[in-house]
Amino acid sequence: MGACPEIRNVRIGLLHLFICHTSASLTINENADPDVLQDLGMAFDRLAPEAWAWVHTCEGPDDMPAHVKTSLTDTSLSIPIRDGGLCTGTWQGIYLCEHRDRAGSRRLILTVQGESI
Amino acid sequence: MGACPEIRNVRIGLLHLFICHTSASLTINENADPDVLQDLGMAFDRLAPEAWAWVHTCEGPDDMPAHVKTSLTDTSLSIPIRDGGLCTGTWQGIYLCEHRDRAGSRRLILTVQGESI
Amino acid sequence: MGACPEIRNVRIGLLHLFICHTSASLTINENADPDVLQDLGMAFDRLAPEAWAWVHTCEGPDDMPAHVKTSLTDTSLSIPIRDGGLCTGTWQGIYLCEHRDRAGSRRLILTVQGESI
Repeated sequence: MGACPEIRNVRIGLLHLFICHTSASLTINENADPDVLQDLGMAFDRLAPEAWAWVHTCEGPDDMPAHVKTSLTDTSLSIPIRDGGLCTGTWQGIYLCEHRDRAGSRRLILTVQGESI
Repeated sequence: MGACPEIRNVRIGLLHLFICHTSASLTINENADPDVLQDLGMAFDRLAPEAWAWVHTCEGPDDMPAHVKTSLTDTSLSIPIRDGGLCTGTWQGIYLCEHRDRAGSRRLILTVQGESI
Repeated sequence: MGACPEIRNVRIGLLHLFICHTSASLTINENADPDVLQDLGMAFDRLAPEAWAWVHTCEGPDDMPAHVKTSLTDTSLSIPIRDGGLCTGTWQGIYLCEHRDRAGSRRLILTVQGESI
């Protein structure tokens, strides 16, 4: 992960990712076939449809669905580090899930804990 | 967070919250507008309705929905600490989600890890 | 936890469990009554049914539902340790959720952090 070169100095530890928002979230899933991304989007649209009778709609019909999808997935992830690399499985990729139709940039905080190489 | 003054002594680290129950859970979501809480409750009632043909109903119709809602949200949260404060975003609040209609008090375990100021 | 004797040497800390797959996941839930497991399976089958119009079906009809169920639950868990034991509540058990109808063995990575006894 080029965005976090500190990982390369860790023999054993954890990388913690935290997204500072309530309408975007994180998850780990298959990232080889782009169809998975499309299907995940379809599934979460069905699990939290815009058509439900939401009360909180001040930012539009995608506002509350975004909050529900955030709680259904993760605001933070924790991934093992070993010998300077992430121990993710072959098919695992880190998704930043943008749940709003229009959104600005998103802020993440990365924390590395562990023993140095 | 007045309940955990140890945070104030941490320069950089993580606060871990763990709820010791299977019918109440934790999540991070928007906490400015109380309508969000109401809508989240409505959404999770639709995602795990009491009307489904549950087998495990020994503690009432809200028993299994509470377990499902617990697995859909989080039993633990991990939040970055920097310079003695939590690094939550502007709109992020920590929810304790009570999924039972009637429940006693709930027990949480907080663990702080990091470097001292 | 016989599988991780290192826990016994930790006075205070965290056990991190990470599953290296995208069609199996982890969750903490009630593990006393086997009906809960059956009901959880029924609920997640309704939340991500094989009958939906999935695009990514290369490994069969249980392929995408498995990915969705993985994101709805957890790829990692973090559990407090105190005085050499896990601080789980009375009813809390750790589930490895196998979302595929047929699957090989699954790989987990356990990381223990904390202060020694």
